Amino acid sequence: MLGKTIENVRNMGPLVHNITNYVTVNDVANVILACGGSPIMSDEPDDVEDITSICHGLNINIGTLNKSSIEGMFKAGKKANELGHIVLLDPVGAGASALRTNTALKLIEEVKFDVIRGNISEIKTLVLGSGTTKGVDADAADAVTDANLKDMVALAKEVAEKFDSIIAITGAIDLVADKDRCFVIRNGRPEMGRITGTGCQLSGMIPAFVAANPDNKLEAVAAAICTMGSAGEIGFERMQPGDGNSTYRNRIIDAIFNMDAATLDKYAKFEIM
Amino acid sequence: MLGKTIENVRNMGPLVHNITNYVTVNDVANVILACGGSPIMSDEPDDVEDITSICHGLNINIGTLNKSSIEGMFKAGKKANELGHIVLLDPVGAGASALRTNTALKLIEEVKFDVIRGNISEIKTLVLGSGTTKGVDADAADAVTDANLKDMVALAKEVAEKFDSIIAITGAIDLVADKDRCFVIRNGRPEMGRITGTGCQLSGMIPAFVAANPDNKLEAVAAAICTMGSAGEIGFERMQPGDGNSTYRNRIIDAIFNMDAATLDKYAKFEIM
Amino acid sequence: MLGKTIENVRNMGPLVHNITNYVTVNDVANVILACGGSPIMSDEPDDVEDITSICHGLNINIGTLNKSSIEGMFKAGKKANELGHIVLLDPVGAGASALRTNTALKLIEEVKFDVIRGNISEIKTLVLGSGTTKGVDADAADAVTDANLKDMVALAKEVAEKFDSIIAITGAIDLVADKDRCFVIRNGRPEMGRITGTGCQLSGMIPAFVAANPDNKLEAVAAAICTMGSAGEIGFERMQPGDGNSTYRNRIIDAIFNMDAATLDKYAKFEIM
Repeated sequence: MLGKTIENVRNMGPLVHNITNYVTVNDVANVILACGGSPIMSDEPDDVEDITSICHGLNINIGTLNKSSIEGMFKAGKKANELGHIVLLDPVGAGASALRTNTALKLIEEVKFDVIRGNISEIKTLVLGSGTTKGVDADAADAVTDANLKDMVALAKEVAEKFDSIIAITGAIDLVADKDRCFVIRNGRPEMGRITGTGCQLSGMIPAFVAANPDNKLEAVAAAICTMGSAGEIGFERMQPGDGNSTYRNRIIDAIFNMDAATLDKYAKFEIM
Repeated sequence: MLGKTIENVRNMGPLVHNITNYVTVNDVANVILACGGSPIMSDEPDDVEDITSICHGLNINIGTLNKSSIEGMFKAGKKANELGHIVLLDPVGAGASALRTNTALKLIEEVKFDVIRGNISEIKTLVLGSGTTKGVDADAADAVTDANLKDMVALAKEVAEKFDSIIAITGAIDLVADKDRCFVIRNGRPEMGRITGTGCQLSGMIPAFVAANPDNKLEAVAAAICTMGSAGEIGFERMQPGDGNSTYRNRIIDAIFNMDAATLDKYAKFEIM
Repeated sequence: MLGKTIENVRNMGPLVHNITNYVTVNDVANVILACGGSPIMSDEPDDVEDITSICHGLNINIGTLNKSSIEGMFKAGKKANELGHIVLLDPVGAGASALRTNTALKLIEEVKFDVIRGNISEIKTLVLGSGTTKGVDADAADAVTDANLKDMVALAKEVAEKFDSIIAITGAIDLVADKDRCFVIRNGRPEMGRITGTGCQLSGMIPAFVAANPDNKLEAVAAAICTMGSAGEIGFERMQPGDGNSTYRNRIIDAIFNMDAATLDKYAKFEIM
């Protein structure tokens, strides 16, 4: 069911404008290339409108925001909205600082986001207006589990309705919801949390998937998440004794590079609630 | 013929100052180390003159330019000129935004560049003053091919004369020209386009090659490009089933690390027109 | 003796705030994760106080300092001091530019550092107020050797007393001193100098080690350095024909990921003088 979406990415080769953090930006670029898209990075306010105009999607990630890049985020976001481009927000560390929380909230007010992707603590912060994020990782007390799944799915749908966006909450169990439907995804491995930036990488891929599948946006976001999680599983199968998180990072990106429709359909584990 | 040039890099260990983008900067640093040089990065206007003064070459890459780093580019470029250091311009995305096009053109006006390296769309933009760059990749319609080779070689020589610089146009076929001679290089593999930053890496290596071979600048630039392309071929030979663009990136840098004069001479495929 | 310290890091999972350079930041993040800590990066002056408040340690690295991040360093350092957090300074390139030298000296005046880690040229610059740093690498004439070891140990202790900090001078022989004791460490391999950022990575790990071992700070710093050096040895054992500095980088981080108390105790080579 989802396999076709990655084929569409490879056929279209969507160009994704990224205003993202300098920690994981190289991996974000290589992951976008791996899935069949093309990345371009620009955060200078005087540059972003021109750059986003030639792209198909925009990924705004506040992981290492600064005064100048924040201005760039607003300008790029509004321009992308004007042009009808896909826009994603990754509110990295919302809840961990006032600047991050306020920037994310103000972005949501002034820019229409097709997708908001974060961990559960970041998403809760956006809803509540304040948070308890433990750095850039989710608070364990907040985690989506089998025990609270029904409530969490309802929450995801509510947030999706509130922000009129697809909401992707990633963690051990991933949720991808619009106001009516929620994909509950069980791909990936816990060892992925020991690599920096798998979330950022996902946020780079999603606009490529959505731009290439405009009539099935919810499926496209779910497919991107299943692609990352499946790649985490395939990459782990290839690990050798002595390998660690650095090699695992490479193997995951490699697995995305080699992902085809059949492999994605074979690995993807989800239900729709 | 070109093998000696990389030996000279390894013997001299030139120090290269890089004002480059934050996307590919880590790979640029590792590639400069791999070929025998030493990298230092600094873009703060108040820092760049001191830093460039202790270096042998300067690499200016506008891939993620901002107001502050642009100021740093002009200050560093002028200082490096004063000191007679090798200076290279990589006009990433010229043609994709007014800021990039204008910054590249103004840099060329105010700084003397020994080498300008870009894809064909970026180089055409510099000549025409405007462009049709598709993001950071060349427009396919512009590509150097066997069918238009003679015209493209003539164009490269003209641009070299116009800017009084060595012009390196990289793509499936690479051209390295001064006003009289043009190396036509056929190394590398198409899969290198699926890795972010092989062009940026090349722009980091070139000042090291030229600084270590001051009497043969054109050959030095050609040798750097043959080194990157040969490493792309050698790295590809080492790919295993399941490997993708992330591992390929590592194998290319590894192959540069292991490149010696004999290997470079064996792999380098070029003619002079 | 040192093995227990890395177990403590893995048990505690300390959160480390990094204001570091954009060249090696991704490797710094992955190395902190590899040793059992958690990284967060933020350099915006309006963000750093909130971020450092939720962390256990702060790593200030001036490798690509700019006006904005310098302001962030002072604000974060003072806040971390207020909260009693571990604070480390990595004076990258002190001696190579006036801005770097002056920033490092002013930071030492206004912020209390638990640890200062640099190469010998950088540390000498801090003492003398000016330096002869060759880029970001130590001047060979300054190196710690068996011939000058006694004098260098005395120097390290003096500097430690002067700055009331643990001083870590890394090179072929590493010194970790407070005013009374100096660990002389002989781990690592010369090939590590051909990878960008092993020093930066170490500076990211040290606050995690010290935060998790508050009653044995000197041992904790020594253990972090032995971990990096041992990983350099273990990673090198795993190198295959054709591998180079890019793969070596991955194997070192992998070896840190897999480092346990027994392995660290087996590999660590040090004496206390």
